[in-house]
Amino acid sequence: MKVNAEAEHPIVERAQVPAARDKLLFTPGPLTTSLSVKQAMLHDTGSWDFEFSAVVARIRASLLSLAGLNHAEGWDVVLLQGSGTFGVEAVFQTCVPPDGKVAVLANGAYGERMTQMLQHTRIEHVVVRSAEDTPHDPAKLDDLLARDKAVTHIAAVHCETTTGLLNPINALGQVARKHRKVWVVDAMSSFGAIPIDFHTGAIDYLISSANKCVEGVPGFSFVFCKRQALASCEGYARSLSLDLLGQLRGFEKNGQFRYTPPTHAILAFDQAVRELDLEGGVPGRGSRYQGNHQVLLAGMRKLGFRPYLNGAAQSCIITAFHTPADPRFAFDTFYRELSARGFIIYPGKLTQVETFRIGSIGRVFPSDIEQLVWAVQVVLEKMGCAVPVRQ
Amino acid sequence: MKVNAEAEHPIVERAQVPAARDKLLFTPGPLTTSLSVKQAMLHDTGSWDFEFSAVVARIRASLLSLAGLNHAEGWDVVLLQGSGTFGVEAVFQTCVPPDGKVAVLANGAYGERMTQMLQHTRIEHVVVRSAEDTPHDPAKLDDLLARDKAVTHIAAVHCETTTGLLNPINALGQVARKHRKVWVVDAMSSFGAIPIDFHTGAIDYLISSANKCVEGVPGFSFVFCKRQALASCEGYARSLSLDLLGQLRGFEKNGQFRYTPPTHAILAFDQAVRELDLEGGVPGRGSRYQGNHQVLLAGMRKLGFRPYLNGAAQSCIITAFHTPADPRFAFDTFYRELSARGFIIYPGKLTQVETFRIGSIGRVFPSDIEQLVWAVQVVLEKMGCAVPVRQ
Repeated sequence: MKVNAEAEHPIVERAQVPAARDKLLFTPGPLTTSLSVKQAMLHDTGSWDFEFSAVVARIRASLLSLAGLNHAEGWDVVLLQGSGTFGVEAVFQTCVPPDGKVAVLANGAYGERMTQMLQHTRIEHVVVRSAEDTPHDPAKLDDLLARDKAVTHIAAVHCETTTGLLNPINALGQVARKHRKVWVVDAMSSFGAIPIDFHTGAIDYLISSANKCVEGVPGFSFVFCKRQALASCEGYARSLSLDLLGQLRGFEKNGQFRYTPPTHAILAFDQAVRELDLEGGVPGRGSRYQGNHQVLLAGMRKLGFRPYLNGAAQSCIITAFHTPADPRFAFDTFYRELSARGFIIYPGKLTQVETFRIGSIGRVFPSDIEQLVWAVQVVLEKMGCAVPVRQ
Repeated sequence: MKVNAEAEHPIVERAQVPAARDKLLFTPGPLTTSLSVKQAMLHDTGSWDFEFSAVVARIRASLLSLAGLNHAEGWDVVLLQGSGTFGVEAVFQTCVPPDGKVAVLANGAYGERMTQMLQHTRIEHVVVRSAEDTPHDPAKLDDLLARDKAVTHIAAVHCETTTGLLNPINALGQVARKHRKVWVVDAMSSFGAIPIDFHTGAIDYLISSANKCVEGVPGFSFVFCKRQALASCEGYARSLSLDLLGQLRGFEKNGQFRYTPPTHAILAFDQAVRELDLEGGVPGRGSRYQGNHQVLLAGMRKLGFRPYLNGAAQSCIITAFHTPADPRFAFDTFYRELSARGFIIYPGKLTQVETFRIGSIGRVFPSDIEQLVWAVQVVLEKMGCAVPVRQ
């Protein structure tokens, strides 16, 4: 127990006695999930068992339907153990031929992570960078593909979680289609809340993860693909664990994961998909996140904060704010004081500019965002910062 | 609702109405876990948060202590997202130099899986096979290493879950040490219940997983290693996600996983480690599993079943039994009838002989095994098999 010098009452830190409620997560994931999603994990199931296989089959069918894809038209979805990063790397490890070359469109940490994957896997690649506040320009991709005939695959992040920026995946995909290149989209933090049209966007592979907008818990990623295209990658895989085609064949053979699946995370996801449906699917969920984002922007602007992105490029998923110029502001104190009040925010990840981030996704509502904004003001005042802050 | 022709009362299948209790899992994992372990997952935590990092640090310290290893003596443990297979592959992907060569000692499916990993990763290797009922002979390893000077790493499975066979890792490790080779042990299904002496066994890398004898839920593996040895593998990693050294550096930098961890599985594991300690650590848990195994062997023998392994090579972890010769026996019916009574067993995985498997690990007790054996008898009789069965 610490005594706050400025207050009359002692402050008991939440870490010292168990709290009644979990802190709310305003992060890009793992997210706050519903209690019912977590309660679905109160069961042990055999990974080889037919009842568990039925859950896996149901999830795969639901995911295809959420994506607006049809199994009969050759689409499939492969679940893979590990985080979203494992899913993205699995696409490269499995689908790029030995003489392939990947063009990575990067404008943030997650685009750069793709580059790191390609360095580790010794796959030839070229990186096209745009500024961290600037969506990729389809005309520049068109130029690159006209010049560099060796490129076989193009990869980009849909919602770059570094900033919340949305890249124009439809226009980029149309350029990829024109040049007959394989188009790989990392839709980690957008799938489930932002509509994605695979046909218009000419998408070949799209990766997302259990603990983002579907509001499951972390433990696996999933990759949408055309079965035939994946099957044509026979023999390329440079990793057994990350062999997407092997994984698909496992599901086809007996409905099972090849290697131990995160059974509890799968049960939670089954419930999460049901709850996404209850909320009205992608439009319903997207609309709640839009509401969260609007309340956040309005509240933070009133406190003097400026979002890093302006206008159209900003998604409703996560928002990066400039750090206040006030010398009394210290992010670590700000973070811990918000945490002590039950609100978890996220640090910045930009290379040039000081920012912090607040996510609008997960089982949080506009009234939660209002409370967060209130706490931000309280903490700023406690830190002695002038409010509204100057930036 | 189906009506059983032979009984007076209708049989309601468990799948049709929710059951009061989960079926018990007599498998090699995922296992039956305690309710308290599962309840630890009823919380969402931020993967970047300092409170979560403290849990990760506590788990890493507990694991080292469980293994009898000392951080001050250079030992470390790296948690990695995914199943145990991901952890084993991560050792190969990260630690074998470009001109390295791995000798795999295989006598079951998990040894063969190592071979598949080395094929996928294009790492040079040689496979030494012994029969599926025969532990590896250290003298043969000695011979191989005297002949093949290119071998840099030796890898084997401690408890080969295909049969429950224990390989003599101490004697094999001493041969590895004599020839100054790196010794990699897959202790997936033994760590936590069978004592392992890293020093006597000259172990360099040992891999296990959250959902085996520590009785956590699936979602990650862990790899014990010497920090210096791992650090000397800089630049070898052929995968970003499976880069063990990168993962260790992430923990060292800020206590965090590099990529989204399975936060709920980590919270469950924290509780599982506490409960392992309550049970008296490795000796206490091993003794319960020994009890389970003895009750299983005695009961199944009484019903005429013969274990695939005889004597010393058989561990208390899992037991393979020969399938009855009776033409009225069908494994699928046997499995489903046991399942309908709340007992999940495991199919065989042997290449030459028809077997099925029953695990003795997880939160199950001798009285549960007695009930399982009773159910086996009931089901055999229902199937019209002669009991005791002929083999």
